[in-house]
Amino acid sequence: MSPREVIEKALAEGRTALTAPEGRQICEAYGIATPGEGLAGSADEAVDISRKIGMPVVLKIVSPDILHKTDAGGVLVGLKTAEEVREGYTTILANARAHDPAARIDGVQVQQLVGGGHEVIVGAVTDPTFGKIVAFGLGGVLVEVLKDVTFRLAPVSGDDALTMLDDIQAAEVLRGARGAEPADRAALAGLIERVGALVDDHPEIVEIDLNPVFASASGAVAADVRILVGEAPAPAERLPREQILAQMTRIFKPRAVAVIGASAEQGKIGNSVMRNLINGGYQGRIFPINPKAADIMGLPAYKSIADVPYDVDVAVFAIPAAFVAPALEEAGKKGVAGAIMIPSGFAETGNADGQREIVEIARRHGVRMLGPNIYGYYYTPENLCATFCTPYDVKGSVALTSQSGGIGMAILGFSRTTKMGVSAIVGVGNKADVDEDDLLTFFEQDDNTSAVAMHLEDLKDGRGFVEAARRVVRRKPVIVLKAGRTAMGARAAGSHTGALAGDDKVYDDILRQAGVVRAPGLNDMLEYARALPLLPAPQGENVVIITGAGGSGVLLSDACVDAGLTLMEIPPDLDEAFRAYIPPFGAAGNPIDITGGEPPSTYENTVRLGLSDARIHALVLGYWHTIVTPPMVFAELIARVVAEERAKGNVKPVVASLAGDTEVEEASEYLFEHGVIAYPYTTEKPVAVLGAKYRWARAAGLLR
Amino acid sequence: MSPREVIEKALAEGRTALTAPEGRQICEAYGIATPGEGLAGSADEAVDISRKIGMPVVLKIVSPDILHKTDAGGVLVGLKTAEEVREGYTTILANARAHDPAARIDGVQVQQLVGGGHEVIVGAVTDPTFGKIVAFGLGGVLVEVLKDVTFRLAPVSGDDALTMLDDIQAAEVLRGARGAEPADRAALAGLIERVGALVDDHPEIVEIDLNPVFASASGAVAADVRILVGEAPAPAERLPREQILAQMTRIFKPRAVAVIGASAEQGKIGNSVMRNLINGGYQGRIFPINPKAADIMGLPAYKSIADVPYDVDVAVFAIPAAFVAPALEEAGKKGVAGAIMIPSGFAETGNADGQREIVEIARRHGVRMLGPNIYGYYYTPENLCATFCTPYDVKGSVALTSQSGGIGMAILGFSRTTKMGVSAIVGVGNKADVDEDDLLTFFEQDDNTSAVAMHLEDLKDGRGFVEAARRVVRRKPVIVLKAGRTAMGARAAGSHTGALAGDDKVYDDILRQAGVVRAPGLNDMLEYARALPLLPAPQGENVVIITGAGGSGVLLSDACVDAGLTLMEIPPDLDEAFRAYIPPFGAAGNPIDITGGEPPSTYENTVRLGLSDARIHALVLGYWHTIVTPPMVFAELIARVVAEERAKGNVKPVVASLAGDTEVEEASEYLFEHGVIAYPYTTEKPVAVLGAKYRWARAAGLLR
Repeated sequence: MSPREVIEKALAEGRTALTAPEGRQICEAYGIATPGEGLAGSADEAVDISRKIGMPVVLKIVSPDILHKTDAGGVLVGLKTAEEVREGYTTILANARAHDPAARIDGVQVQQLVGGGHEVIVGAVTDPTFGKIVAFGLGGVLVEVLKDVTFRLAPVSGDDALTMLDDIQAAEVLRGARGAEPADRAALAGLIERVGALVDDHPEIVEIDLNPVFASASGAVAADVRILVGEAPAPAERLPREQILAQMTRIFKPRAVAVIGASAEQGKIGNSVMRNLINGGYQGRIFPINPKAADIMGLPAYKSIADVPYDVDVAVFAIPAAFVAPALEEAGKKGVAGAIMIPSGFAETGNADGQREIVEIARRHGVRMLGPNIYGYYYTPENLCATFCTPYDVKGSVALTSQSGGIGMAILGFSRTTKMGVSAIVGVGNKADVDEDDLLTFFEQDDNTSAVAMHLEDLKDGRGFVEAARRVVRRKPVIVLKAGRTAMGARAAGSHTGALAGDDKVYDDILRQAGVVRAPGLNDMLEYARALPLLPAPQGENVVIITGAGGSGVLLSDACVDAGLTLMEIPPDLDEAFRAYIPPFGAAGNPIDITGGEPPSTYENTVRLGLSDARIHALVLGYWHTIVTPPMVFAELIARVVAEERAKGNVKPVVASLAGDTEVEEASEYLFEHGVIAYPYTTEKPVAVLGAKYRWARAAGLLR
Repeated sequence: MSPREVIEKALAEGRTALTAPEGRQICEAYGIATPGEGLAGSADEAVDISRKIGMPVVLKIVSPDILHKTDAGGVLVGLKTAEEVREGYTTILANARAHDPAARIDGVQVQQLVGGGHEVIVGAVTDPTFGKIVAFGLGGVLVEVLKDVTFRLAPVSGDDALTMLDDIQAAEVLRGARGAEPADRAALAGLIERVGALVDDHPEIVEIDLNPVFASASGAVAADVRILVGEAPAPAERLPREQILAQMTRIFKPRAVAVIGASAEQGKIGNSVMRNLINGGYQGRIFPINPKAADIMGLPAYKSIADVPYDVDVAVFAIPAAFVAPALEEAGKKGVAGAIMIPSGFAETGNADGQREIVEIARRHGVRMLGPNIYGYYYTPENLCATFCTPYDVKGSVALTSQSGGIGMAILGFSRTTKMGVSAIVGVGNKADVDEDDLLTFFEQDDNTSAVAMHLEDLKDGRGFVEAARRVVRRKPVIVLKAGRTAMGARAAGSHTGALAGDDKVYDDILRQAGVVRAPGLNDMLEYARALPLLPAPQGENVVIITGAGGSGVLLSDACVDAGLTLMEIPPDLDEAFRAYIPPFGAAGNPIDITGGEPPSTYENTVRLGLSDARIHALVLGYWHTIVTPPMVFAELIARVVAEERAKGNVKPVVASLAGDTEVEEASEYLFEHGVIAYPYTTEKPVAVLGAKYRWARAAGLLR
């Protein structure tokens, strides 16, 4: 029987768990090694099989009605002689009958006792967000108590499977730490890859648990196989990429916008939206829709969008939830591409039916709906402020999205105060229709956007997101703040692997697999968004710290390790070259401590050397406020040297930490404006930002 | 023989390792259980002993010349019969002779084979910073690969030993995770306590390793004992507390200050110090010392401090390193209490001899020296700015110290820009004499100081620091930024001050044991320092989040978990009470989501309830900028409600995260000034600060 036939048979019999022989059969079909074994229907047969596969053996009851074999006294381990096997068979059968007299008993599985090497767990589960995911960890305490496990989307390529072996904390163990035998990595990765293929090919496999797998120098053998089956989940509905792009382009670059519920009355959302569209400088047509007004803010108003005598791309809704459905129906008939659904009062207040209704209307008309329950959206290249907030005016190249209005407001305030250059700010709210995948599809090819930052609490279609993110990441960084990090996923655990798949670890591993830069908190997301588009991409891993304050050097080194950066081992000739510029009691090496009280020339010489030597790929500067080199002197000097070297083709990311009196604030701002990511009073932030840029550069394959 | 006699005998014989029987003898004297055993001089004796203690047994060669017994074929495990023991004895002896024909062989140790329960490691080492420290971890991969180990200063109380069992990541294992037998916690803690007592009583024990210890439900047995001995380290020199206090009080509250190297010339350090003393408003006498000037800045100058016709408490040195020694000699003769040694050019530039010389002079005269290589110090209650930086004027109650000048400047700039209220800023530089212990001793009893924050790269006397910190922590928080946390960071510390950077895990555990709040980075230290004195101490662990933005609520919850805070399980009656104030689609529970767009009264009602219900101990507020409740309305309202409830005796820490347009910056500042720790654009910072306050409150015993 093929795996599919095995599964179908089990499902036809109303079973959700496959028997051990069934599991083994499926494994064999996928080249997943299992111990030699056979199914014995009698004590004699058990002895015969034992002799054939070699003793010692393990005996296990085979019954579809006994799931927890050990509890039923249905497992005996390490039987070494024919006599022991014979007695064991009888004992197990008696135990099973005592445990459940009604249980159907298919026989006793006789299995070669394997061992040696490392006990690992390989499994797969069906995640509600990401679908089939594969898990790997070391057996026992490490996985079960320390949760030292790693996940990937299925299917898993051989290369990805190899990265899983290194992604657990105890990775060294498999490499032979403490004198242990190193595992055959290729064999183990191969087994992981096969499990991924198996669940990818068979969506009816709800969970699979190979526990333990004995991974030794000579291979990987799954000593126990447990497979749960069920109905295959419905595949996510996805529109073709070209269609999404066409819709999103009409939404972000509309020729005409209608405001449904436009109002002349200050304080009303329909008034704020009108004012923002007009004052924001939007150059397309604006059509206020209001059954009771002839004109609003100097523009002719229409009773219904149906009355507008032009094509309309976007309808912004600024009316109460109760009136949305008929208005959306009309907008749909009018042929709008996007419905910007500002109103609240839908799923977030328990009105799931109302939300379903408008989704259905939108879908019927091919309208893409943003929201409901949002602040609207900005797209600065078109001077488009379709929101009830205030216009935003610092154009730039980062696109931000948020699932929450509060976070959207924080994005707006932060952008304004830090002069962060923004291409778009988009509220996605309830995500009844348009979600992050759609937005990524637009931003991917949007030349006005060079980085994307997204606040999200969940993903409607995790795989769709990963696919879109992977494409975007090849060209520009995608930063994600995933809220609800620490909420433990309350999920029915049918297996070890299922129990391990706590929400956040799955998100964390899979977002990383997608190449996304995950921000640990809100402020980090905002700072990454602000800084990443300004920093050039590094060309290699060699980071060098140049500092005027030894104390900052130590903290900057700490921060580099925290950020996963590599402090370059300075080769002797380069060390010599740096030493020529710094006082004899300064420290070369890395950090390069130029010592306090040095004149601007010392900063200039060392930074220039750092930028021009091709072996160095990124600089972290530590500035110490002195009267010899005041803050603005430092800032102007560094900005000039960086620009000069850039003009010569020495394009490297440079970040700086400024320690000093309050003048360092102005100096930091000046540096930021000149493409050097600088912060006062912190050694952590500039390095964290550089670390984020590196994470992206690695994911984009720029450092290979 | 007593343990001391055993150790002395070994040392007398020129040995650094004790034999197994010696180790066992010492363990027995301290009530540390070891397996039944005996020393056999013949095969017959080995059989006799085996029969007495019970088989199976382990045989081990006993020879002072064979350290690695296994390599020498000197260990046989699991001998079950008299015959096996007899043969084993002969084999071991033959192996040992083959390994080293010259080795002195004292016999063969016959040891009961123990096992079962959990394999743990208990040990003690001599740390260069902290002296004897005790280590505990689970055996095997957990300790050796994952470094899952915890440290305490020896001796360790029984209570502290119990906390060690919970301080490892795999703590659950000992409690019986995965169906394992729970360990006898009291027995295991007792064993740890005894090891601590043993090394505390015998400083000659350099290292002791009980590995493995079998910790089962019935006790804890050290299966293998390894003890290394050597010369006892010299005890740290410490002055009596009263003497330190008298000295420090003269330094921080001097009646007269001399400036050695005072200068009228702008740009000179001796000029900056004079200006800062005068402009800072210091009311004591100021004596400029300069052999070439009659008066400086209107004050009569003296050729030498010896010529000053008054008592002088503090001499600030602003002269090159080469001239320091004779000037310090004169200051010593004059009877100053403190020498503020600004000059660099000592140990940090390799001039260790010069540093030793001035330390010797200071000690000879009973002068306490701050530095050398520092920016000086501030003590705002006396308007004392004995530094070459600028005067600092926002008086307050946090005292900050830094080992690095750069970090000192960052403290200054941050303080000024955030209006952080400061009592003292002190540079400790090379710490040739005065160190953190001395400063803590002063700040402990200084009523002008309510919190202490220290940047440090090393500790001269780790135990002295812990003792001082423990005393201070009972009354006020001590925040520590320990630089050189990571391996790379530690390397930089080495190059900066020649400091020996200890393993960070040791620092981390022992600082925590001392009750210190460790800040992960520079900016965190500064924010904790700024906020902790303003926040009242919590009375219990129940934290409640009240938020206007659901999105912030999720992020604030994440932050609470990260900060080790407990989100209160809201009892039904309280839930009911909150629900009465919020819209039906809002969420009670915790976070309490009052929903966006609510009027000020909703914030007021819920926050007042949170402050007045005695079961709630701290509030985290999430604000969402709306036109219904603008930022300053929210800020004034919260400040008023908090003040009113405080007046009624409802004194609780309240922190807030403000999401909104730029007006939230002003609102955050207003709240901060009114004792509500508020930040814009971040959900992490306010919660991290509350977490730091909680860590202190727990250490101070306020939450028990």
